[in-house]
Amino acid sequence: MPALPTRTPHATRKGEEPIIRILGISGSGRRRSHNTALLEAAKELLPEDAALDVHDVSAFPLFNQDLEVEIPPPIRRFKEKVRRADAILFATPEHNYSISALLKNAIEWGNRPEEDNSWDGKPAAIMSASTSPRGGARAQLHLRQIMVDLNMYPINSPQLLLARAQQHFDANMKLTDLEFRGILRELLTSLVEWTRRLRSSA
Amino acid sequence: MPALPTRTPHATRKGEEPIIRILGISGSGRRRSHNTALLEAAKELLPEDAALDVHDVSAFPLFNQDLEVEIPPPIRRFKEKVRRADAILFATPEHNYSISALLKNAIEWGNRPEEDNSWDGKPAAIMSASTSPRGGARAQLHLRQIMVDLNMYPINSPQLLLARAQQHFDANMKLTDLEFRGILRELLTSLVEWTRRLRSSA
Amino acid sequence: MPALPTRTPHATRKGEEPIIRILGISGSGRRRSHNTALLEAAKELLPEDAALDVHDVSAFPLFNQDLEVEIPPPIRRFKEKVRRADAILFATPEHNYSISALLKNAIEWGNRPEEDNSWDGKPAAIMSASTSPRGGARAQLHLRQIMVDLNMYPINSPQLLLARAQQHFDANMKLTDLEFRGILRELLTSLVEWTRRLRSSA
Amino acid sequence: MPALPTRTPHATRKGEEPIIRILGISGSGRRRSHNTALLEAAKELLPEDAALDVHDVSAFPLFNQDLEVEIPPPIRRFKEKVRRADAILFATPEHNYSISALLKNAIEWGNRPEEDNSWDGKPAAIMSASTSPRGGARAQLHLRQIMVDLNMYPINSPQLLLARAQQHFDANMKLTDLEFRGILRELLTSLVEWTRRLRSSA
Repeated sequence: MPALPTRTPHATRKGEEPIIRILGISGSGRRRSHNTALLEAAKELLPEDAALDVHDVSAFPLFNQDLEVEIPPPIRRFKEKVRRADAILFATPEHNYSISALLKNAIEWGNRPEEDNSWDGKPAAIMSASTSPRGGARAQLHLRQIMVDLNMYPINSPQLLLARAQQHFDANMKLTDLEFRGILRELLTSLVEWTRRLRSSA
Repeated sequence: MPALPTRTPHATRKGEEPIIRILGISGSGRRRSHNTALLEAAKELLPEDAALDVHDVSAFPLFNQDLEVEIPPPIRRFKEKVRRADAILFATPEHNYSISALLKNAIEWGNRPEEDNSWDGKPAAIMSASTSPRGGARAQLHLRQIMVDLNMYPINSPQLLLARAQQHFDANMKLTDLEFRGILRELLTSLVEWTRRLRSSA
Repeated sequence: MPALPTRTPHATRKGEEPIIRILGISGSGRRRSHNTALLEAAKELLPEDAALDVHDVSAFPLFNQDLEVEIPPPIRRFKEKVRRADAILFATPEHNYSISALLKNAIEWGNRPEEDNSWDGKPAAIMSASTSPRGGARAQLHLRQIMVDLNMYPINSPQLLLARAQQHFDANMKLTDLEFRGILRELLTSLVEWTRRLRSSA
Repeated sequence: MPALPTRTPHATRKGEEPIIRILGISGSGRRRSHNTALLEAAKELLPEDAALDVHDVSAFPLFNQDLEVEIPPPIRRFKEKVRRADAILFATPEHNYSISALLKNAIEWGNRPEEDNSWDGKPAAIMSASTSPRGGARAQLHLRQIMVDLNMYPINSPQLLLARAQQHFDANMKLTDLEFRGILRELLTSLVEWTRRLRSSA
């Protein structure tokens, strides 16, 4: 996987403002995941001054503090990507009213060891797809609580909760629902604006 | 690992009521885990009509719905143990205001596939040890929410939140704090009574 | 308001098991509240071995610890009713992702002063109606957390979350949706069974 | 109570940046409230480019949608103050694992009627004092969830959770604990910086 460009000099758009580089993380590792498919849809709906790179976190070893003494190379690469990203976009399923173990595991690795919280200060957005009628509302609440400890700054709206997810994708896992494509576009625009706002004033 | 006795006939205590078999699960996989040590302390403080078997869930593969088609043998054995247990005792660390990915992962496996929720209807208790001054209060809240979906029935009190955990164990990871040994004994008694109450009336 | 019969002797049904007396509390004080209307629907759908009394908590003074020195008479009557009830049925709107201040206020009065928690040990059920597409899922989570501190025992299922509430009632605020009438009947049956289960074994 | 100055022209400090006007709200109405006392301490510890006005919300009528047709004058004044504030500082007790009904009530009034959310976009900070050993951690989590719906932007740190509150104030309700005075000063500085950051970039 190609490394992201280093922070300086930024890739720029027509000599103007630097591109906002978003790192996308799916909380599902299954092949035909609606959440991973949401991230694919996001690639098509990005504002032109943003880029989205999706990183697969489904094969990470289960976090365990004893493993911190020698961070596994795939984790080191992941942490480096998180650090370089301007913003984070989580796509999370809801498992038992919370986020998936798979996503929580990536979050824990990103946060450790203690003096090395890769998430620190990152702007973020959440979306969720679920086959249930609630669309992942409870998982999003848990993720927002977790982000307080990570010192992340999620946008408040729009909320993207895709209930009965199977109805909104075609056989190729393409998001076909026009209403949700509109909300996703709005969410991405909102994340990019929020990121610029926090950066310009930092 | 020796299999638990099958449900009928129950092991009994002096021909009286059957022993309550508690399955203990630690949310930490590190060697010197305070939460695992809490489970060890629980073994010493059990009411005499109860037994505690601790199952190590730290080496499970990360749950992924694609893996459901062929449940790995260690998971099948775990699910069988959960099913046979009369009550569950969770010892959970708090990672980023929630339960650990390691514990969430065991919970997801226990809950899947869809028609096979091994946790269904189980009485339960939670305890947490943490080096932070909050003692895991936020992780316990998340776990309680998760248990609604699992259809588990946790006791409400006593609450066992062991803050600044390192101060309460000796060099051999033995729980030395007398106040917390008392609370732990009370928690176990309460769990056993609650389990009998729900069973007798089922 | 007529006082509930005292606990002994219980009103009985054909000399059999005593009637389960449920106290219904609506978290909304508005005239045409969907949540209050849910409680009205519940009266029609009760199992025959149960009775439902709805108590209006919308005119209580805002709780304040300084007021505890002399509990206002309407609060004293309310607390007495809670104490005598066999089970509690909450109907809660969702205001800003939580339960309403109005309901929280009744809960705080019921819980105070410190040595007089009227909710202690009560079986309970929750339902919510909301005009939003989530149906009050977040409010229910908050209420469940609150109930841990109150030492109440809510049933886990069925969940009754009435989204887009305005579509399910007629002009007279009668619940007309057959699916939801079925879920409500099931919820009441489940609450009555749970209450008997906890009582018989107490 | 004197009205806040209108937004233009801002009061300024030595012709430099405008003063950040913080509105303080206590979730407790009792006379000797530790949370109200925290707000008094905040007045002494403010950065010099900030002002703090504390508004008493303990005598508001219980919110009820039927009352929206004619907002009571004290509520109208409150909503105007919220609107004019640059940032909000909540001091919340923990009642039954959540914020107080009294605070929730002020929040609901501030958020209503639907097209008039006075909290919209406000930077904010939370602090809590509690006699319990958890210091209000659970109440703060509820308040953060509520703020997502209000579209408020709370700072993540420092966290000010004053456990065993009675030990940290003298007989005149003055915050005497030096460690907590330091955390409070840091929280105020952090809130002012966060507010400037969001304003400069808006």
